[in-house]
Amino acid sequence: MRAASIPAPPGRVIFVGAGPGAADLITVRGARALASADVVLHDALTDPALRELAPGARWIDVGKRGFCDSTGQTRINALLVQQARRAQVVVRLKGGDPSVFGRLEEELEALAQAGITSEVVPGVTSALAAAAATQRPLTRRGRGRSVSLTTAMTRAGELQATRTADTEVFYMAGRQLAALGRRLREAGWPAHTPVAVVSRAGWPDQIGSDHTVGTLAQAALLHSGRPTVVTVGVGAEAVAPIATAGTAGTTATAGIASTAAVGQASTAGSALAPPGLSAVAAEAALTAP
Amino acid sequence: MRAASIPAPPGRVIFVGAGPGAADLITVRGARALASADVVLHDALTDPALRELAPGARWIDVGKRGFCDSTGQTRINALLVQQARRAQVVVRLKGGDPSVFGRLEEELEALAQAGITSEVVPGVTSALAAAAATQRPLTRRGRGRSVSLTTAMTRAGELQATRTADTEVFYMAGRQLAALGRRLREAGWPAHTPVAVVSRAGWPDQIGSDHTVGTLAQAALLHSGRPTVVTVGVGAEAVAPIATAGTAGTTATAGIASTAAVGQASTAGSALAPPGLSAVAAEAALTAP
Repeated sequence: MRAASIPAPPGRVIFVGAGPGAADLITVRGARALASADVVLHDALTDPALRELAPGARWIDVGKRGFCDSTGQTRINALLVQQARRAQVVVRLKGGDPSVFGRLEEELEALAQAGITSEVVPGVTSALAAAAATQRPLTRRGRGRSVSLTTAMTRAGELQATRTADTEVFYMAGRQLAALGRRLREAGWPAHTPVAVVSRAGWPDQIGSDHTVGTLAQAALLHSGRPTVVTVGVGAEAVAPIATAGTAGTTATAGIASTAAVGQASTAGSALAPPGLSAVAAEAALTAP
Repeated sequence: MRAASIPAPPGRVIFVGAGPGAADLITVRGARALASADVVLHDALTDPALRELAPGARWIDVGKRGFCDSTGQTRINALLVQQARRAQVVVRLKGGDPSVFGRLEEELEALAQAGITSEVVPGVTSALAAAAATQRPLTRRGRGRSVSLTTAMTRAGELQATRTADTEVFYMAGRQLAALGRRLREAGWPAHTPVAVVSRAGWPDQIGSDHTVGTLAQAALLHSGRPTVVTVGVGAEAVAPIATAGTAGTTATAGIASTAAVGQASTAGSALAPPGLSAVAAEAALTAP
């Protein structure tokens, strides 16, 4: 029979940005895509609570060992194509936003080569979550009209830093905070420039601490072993309670907060946190004047 | 009676990023905040469909005339404080992400001065929505590890452009596309550099078109009068179906797509769009090879 020889049409792949952490920072559109999924391929950093949004789907962790070495991306690409040929809807769930440090290009290419349709649902990238959690707007009227999102590590494993935007946010710099501080100074940032460090932004156990370019090394212990976002420049300044020109003084005050004080403030903040927004409220309390 | 003289405690304000457009690009946390709101202060650009998430709340449009002139921000600040003193939960709903070009600092300051607690729920900023809609990852492995988000217009109304990141995304440049092209050339971007222009990113009627720095002026008519995001550099390149080094050729092909062809592709793409993801799918079809 001729009809039987026509292969089933392949499924489609929906790339979904899970947001930076806590499951409720996914978009409504992303949550609906999960609810429609037969198969979900996810990274290590996405919140296990997201599984409740697709309890009937097959969840495959591609953040595990076997996908992390140099050939890992090729294996993920192959698995994505294989699953899309078997299932109707495959969701490729990525931490943060798929278009920012998500290696989206490689996976889109693999699907296009295989003739498989794909869509991308954006998500909240870590820089935005860190800014929200610490109430540090990345842009400031009249003072900060450019934000740079960058990874401090080059592909060759070299640490680089620049001074090109009013606010610069460095991803994946957690292991290199001392070296990053040195590179920032070499790039021309004054030692007193405010730096806000947030690890596990958007998760219930997120931590934020205030430093300067000159004292960034002191952040290393507090954020050790945790995914960390480093914000440098005007967007790292605490928002002053009095809207005058005295921002420099305010920054210095915020900048000398010790890591011990930060830990105490964070604990105190948790007690004040309203239900369902504990992480955000805890950080807001931490950074309140 | 002494007890009666104690004023009621003020409410709290939750700043919520509505995302770039369509109501389903808000986060789940943001949707829950809306559901808890007594009052919602919103901008002009947020989707009216979001009202369904808080049908019992009082919605106040602060994007209307009366809030848009030079004293508008001061009036919004005062209204926010006034409402927080009357209501339990006030949601301040902002387009995109509150921390990126959202004038969040002024409103946080006003609340802090008034002793009112606030929280910030992040959202999807337009640059990420435009990248998702057109399937143009903002970072590219080995070629693009920095993204800059910037407004082309200075506070003084002057148009500026730079060349500091591998990918630069310009917000609020819709009225100045021809001038932006000239400024980009002056800043050192070669004329053949790919530029992706997306207006009303994330909305059902979003439009995306491909240009180069040298031909950016041609985008002006298509996106006239619409909020527009302009992506310049490696992140504007179409993803090649074959993962080889031939990206320069691919870019050139994408770059010469005329606005007429874009319009046709967009219409054809809409017909292919799966339910609930029409805007994204339409743009994906537009940018497929």
